[in-house]
Amino acid sequence: MKNKSTLSWRERLHEVIYEAETPAGKLFDIVLLVFIFLSVIFVMLESVRGLDPWVYTYLLYGEWVVTILFTLEYIARIICIKRPKRYIFSFYGIIDFLSTIPLYLSFFFAGSAALLTFRSLRLLRIFRILKITRYIGEGNRLKKALAHSRPKILVFLFAVMVLSLIAGTMMYLIEGEEGGFTSIPMGVYWTIVTLTTVGFGDIHPITPLGRFLASAIMIMGYGIIAVPTGIVSAEYSRRSNPEINNTQSCYNCNEKEHLDKAKYCHHCGYDLHNENEE
Amino acid sequence: MKNKSTLSWRERLHEVIYEAETPAGKLFDIVLLVFIFLSVIFVMLESVRGLDPWVYTYLLYGEWVVTILFTLEYIARIICIKRPKRYIFSFYGIIDFLSTIPLYLSFFFAGSAALLTFRSLRLLRIFRILKITRYIGEGNRLKKALAHSRPKILVFLFAVMVLSLIAGTMMYLIEGEEGGFTSIPMGVYWTIVTLTTVGFGDIHPITPLGRFLASAIMIMGYGIIAVPTGIVSAEYSRRSNPEINNTQSCYNCNEKEHLDKAKYCHHCGYDLHNENEE
Amino acid sequence: MKNKSTLSWRERLHEVIYEAETPAGKLFDIVLLVFIFLSVIFVMLESVRGLDPWVYTYLLYGEWVVTILFTLEYIARIICIKRPKRYIFSFYGIIDFLSTIPLYLSFFFAGSAALLTFRSLRLLRIFRILKITRYIGEGNRLKKALAHSRPKILVFLFAVMVLSLIAGTMMYLIEGEEGGFTSIPMGVYWTIVTLTTVGFGDIHPITPLGRFLASAIMIMGYGIIAVPTGIVSAEYSRRSNPEINNTQSCYNCNEKEHLDKAKYCHHCGYDLHNENEE
Amino acid sequence: MKNKSTLSWRERLHEVIYEAETPAGKLFDIVLLVFIFLSVIFVMLESVRGLDPWVYTYLLYGEWVVTILFTLEYIARIICIKRPKRYIFSFYGIIDFLSTIPLYLSFFFAGSAALLTFRSLRLLRIFRILKITRYIGEGNRLKKALAHSRPKILVFLFAVMVLSLIAGTMMYLIEGEEGGFTSIPMGVYWTIVTLTTVGFGDIHPITPLGRFLASAIMIMGYGIIAVPTGIVSAEYSRRSNPEINNTQSCYNCNEKEHLDKAKYCHHCGYDLHNENEE
Repeated sequence: MKNKSTLSWRERLHEVIYEAETPAGKLFDIVLLVFIFLSVIFVMLESVRGLDPWVYTYLLYGEWVVTILFTLEYIARIICIKRPKRYIFSFYGIIDFLSTIPLYLSFFFAGSAALLTFRSLRLLRIFRILKITRYIGEGNRLKKALAHSRPKILVFLFAVMVLSLIAGTMMYLIEGEEGGFTSIPMGVYWTIVTLTTVGFGDIHPITPLGRFLASAIMIMGYGIIAVPTGIVSAEYSRRSNPEINNTQSCYNCNEKEHLDKAKYCHHCGYDLHNENEE
Repeated sequence: MKNKSTLSWRERLHEVIYEAETPAGKLFDIVLLVFIFLSVIFVMLESVRGLDPWVYTYLLYGEWVVTILFTLEYIARIICIKRPKRYIFSFYGIIDFLSTIPLYLSFFFAGSAALLTFRSLRLLRIFRILKITRYIGEGNRLKKALAHSRPKILVFLFAVMVLSLIAGTMMYLIEGEEGGFTSIPMGVYWTIVTLTTVGFGDIHPITPLGRFLASAIMIMGYGIIAVPTGIVSAEYSRRSNPEINNTQSCYNCNEKEHLDKAKYCHHCGYDLHNENEE
Repeated sequence: MKNKSTLSWRERLHEVIYEAETPAGKLFDIVLLVFIFLSVIFVMLESVRGLDPWVYTYLLYGEWVVTILFTLEYIARIICIKRPKRYIFSFYGIIDFLSTIPLYLSFFFAGSAALLTFRSLRLLRIFRILKITRYIGEGNRLKKALAHSRPKILVFLFAVMVLSLIAGTMMYLIEGEEGGFTSIPMGVYWTIVTLTTVGFGDIHPITPLGRFLASAIMIMGYGIIAVPTGIVSAEYSRRSNPEINNTQSCYNCNEKEHLDKAKYCHHCGYDLHNENEE
Repeated sequence: MKNKSTLSWRERLHEVIYEAETPAGKLFDIVLLVFIFLSVIFVMLESVRGLDPWVYTYLLYGEWVVTILFTLEYIARIICIKRPKRYIFSFYGIIDFLSTIPLYLSFFFAGSAALLTFRSLRLLRIFRILKITRYIGEGNRLKKALAHSRPKILVFLFAVMVLSLIAGTMMYLIEGEEGGFTSIPMGVYWTIVTLTTVGFGDIHPITPLGRFLASAIMIMGYGIIAVPTGIVSAEYSRRSNPEINNTQSCYNCNEKEHLDKAKYCHHCGYDLHNENEE
């Protein structure tokens, strides 16, 4: 990072908008987040029917305020970056654009069907919220733990899918259309609903054999739900034994268990770092 | 604690009511708890309709007994404390007051609607039960384990909420009003019901695409339910791990994390046992 | 145990019926178990309506066979024991008696209502099956792990109950009778159904506020279901840290626990690989 | 494995079809897998009703392509193996045969009922997909973890079954036919649905006593779902855990991993205790 006084106004703006290391940058991100949350709440409320008419009027006003602010932000982002094209065609660049235009488009395309489509574009703003995770150190730890157990989780998902296919097909053949199992995809859907212990109840077996198989699937679901839990759990246990993740051993007494931050041997009081440097 | 014989009757009453270190204090708390439980059962039964009329008569008698005892307790609490105002406007003071007055208020305000409101005040007594937890050492351990994994849990809850927003909106757009997804908040509600594997079934997808997305959400729910389990599990494992189960702190540098077998401070090399014996 | 030849026939019968260390004793227990399972299946099938009439006829025959065998077993148990009264009034003695008499009683008391009651007595035989667990060493381990974490589980259950009371009352006040929350006990029942992620869907919130509270309860259910899992998981981890994954045994001292990479016996210093190659 | 140039064309074909160590063998397996997946999708779509007629026409074309390829593969498998009978009557041999013939059989047996049966044979192809697991090393680890905890899981399943029997019978006696508990097997089915926290809601208690018992079963379900999770979790933790709980290190070779009870270094055979005493 260069010295502040030597920065041009575009560089400063860039620091505020794209970075979060300065107080201004942090403030910008928090304000942006508040407006994203507000716009999400506006979109959610707009979808609710049967409210008083004045609510929809105020929602439209709010929508305009948010749209104008998002427009200004979008323009600022393009101005202060060196390669605007790279931002415009990036993932967040496209989302920023799409979440800004709906209200403008509503001038050209009238009609409820078209508006519904525009509204759905506005909802993409929600993805912006995901950016907040970068501020939370814990989020990275969670991500790392999940990333590390990804091969296990993929194998597990594959096993669940094959099992769902087989069980869903069997349920379709056993139950037939009476119980709601109108096709194999429906049977597979039901099996996933059951294996994950969600159990909506919109489709459920009615024949004795179907119920017996359903019981077997449910009890298997027990074992299956244990697997991802076990994986993540073990991963976390492994990660959160932070006390001793080193191989230091005391030069004086050869004691080997030392906390990561230890400077002196807890057994004999010898200086551990002195040893390391020699 | 002063010598018992030198205590005034108000100090002794204070010891019985507010503390739990003497046999009388423990007995008082147990008796109080029994009456709180009784009053909770009375309120619960009162809300049940279709019972024999004499049941409601006896419930009223019981209600009177409990109300009078609660009144006496409330007066005693005010008398024996030095700063009555501090108790009266404390959290439990307000609850104690609110759980005592409903029956008295029913003299002034007649009618079923008003009585329903009073009844709801009575229910606040339930919170008193929470005080019992202080007697159970295990409760503190549970609390500590939860408190320690709070940042992880908050990040997790945030992730669940963002996911629910996105998935709920998508389900609203895909399913529309036919399947019960009448608004985005409804879609978010359904997503939470599904992700937590509760699955009431009052709202459920009916289009093939909606069912496909629902399957994806359910399988993600698998992975997601594994996260809090893994967190708490790891937290518990960590706590029952032998590395650091002591409260030693170095006399020299005040470092507090020491292995159980440590003889010397790992931070400054000071003799830990020497300190303990002095 | 005395020498076999010196045992009287009653002592030998006792050994067969009450113990499981001799082949005859084991065989007796297995045969008994098969008949208990059969009688359970008979009772289960008898409760199913709409089967062919001959099925019920065969079930009655089977019932007679089982009843006669159970009678003989009951008499044998009384004969071969020194203190018959102690057996007769023991837990299993009473169950054995109650599971034998229903068919005999049906001679004296005719009528479907009375028979239903007798049938319920027969069902107590199911408890006998629980005795099988003593053969399975793993069962004891499971029991021990659960027993060890009992205080934690009790505190947890208490917390769940208080939470259910508070949440159930709030749901009753918010939702009212429309949504099926006809009384506070009903609200508490619904909260338990929801917290445990079962979610039948017979009762479910319909007001926006009720749905918001329900979402909060469900997400809390996430954290809550993690607690018993974490407890049992940590308990198991603690117990199952057996250090070895091989079946090496020292040629010199027959020590069987060796690390996977071990070259020499850690008990006597003998060369393990030398032994393997010879 | 012989030198490639010396292999006959049948040996080379065998290597491609039955093995997966050569690039051609891997390619064959991947192509086969794609076609199995395609055939599964064809069967699934065929079971869906109400699609455009041309979809069914294209599905029939696809079905023919897949059937012809499967026929060629089946013939190739028989030709290139030394003992064709052994393959033909093996598990996968029979599945390969059964998944190939349905379309041919449809020439001889016309009518929807017969076609449905043929279709069910075709579904057996799904099992082929299971073969993919051999490529995934993680799959073996998962399998091992499950296999190792099998005795625990069996005991657990037995406990769940006995509990379901007892609880299901009690619910049948308490609820009777009104609530949907028409027979004991139905009660057992409901108990499994509830214990596994699936909760369809097609059957649910309606009497106060039944609801009370249901609450107890659900809360027990909490504890029960924790057991398999704990088992698998501990199994996973164990596998990623270092085997030792001590800090012994050999004076002679400085080997650091020793069992807690080790007396001699497993690497060089040196006396560990001798070292400690010096």
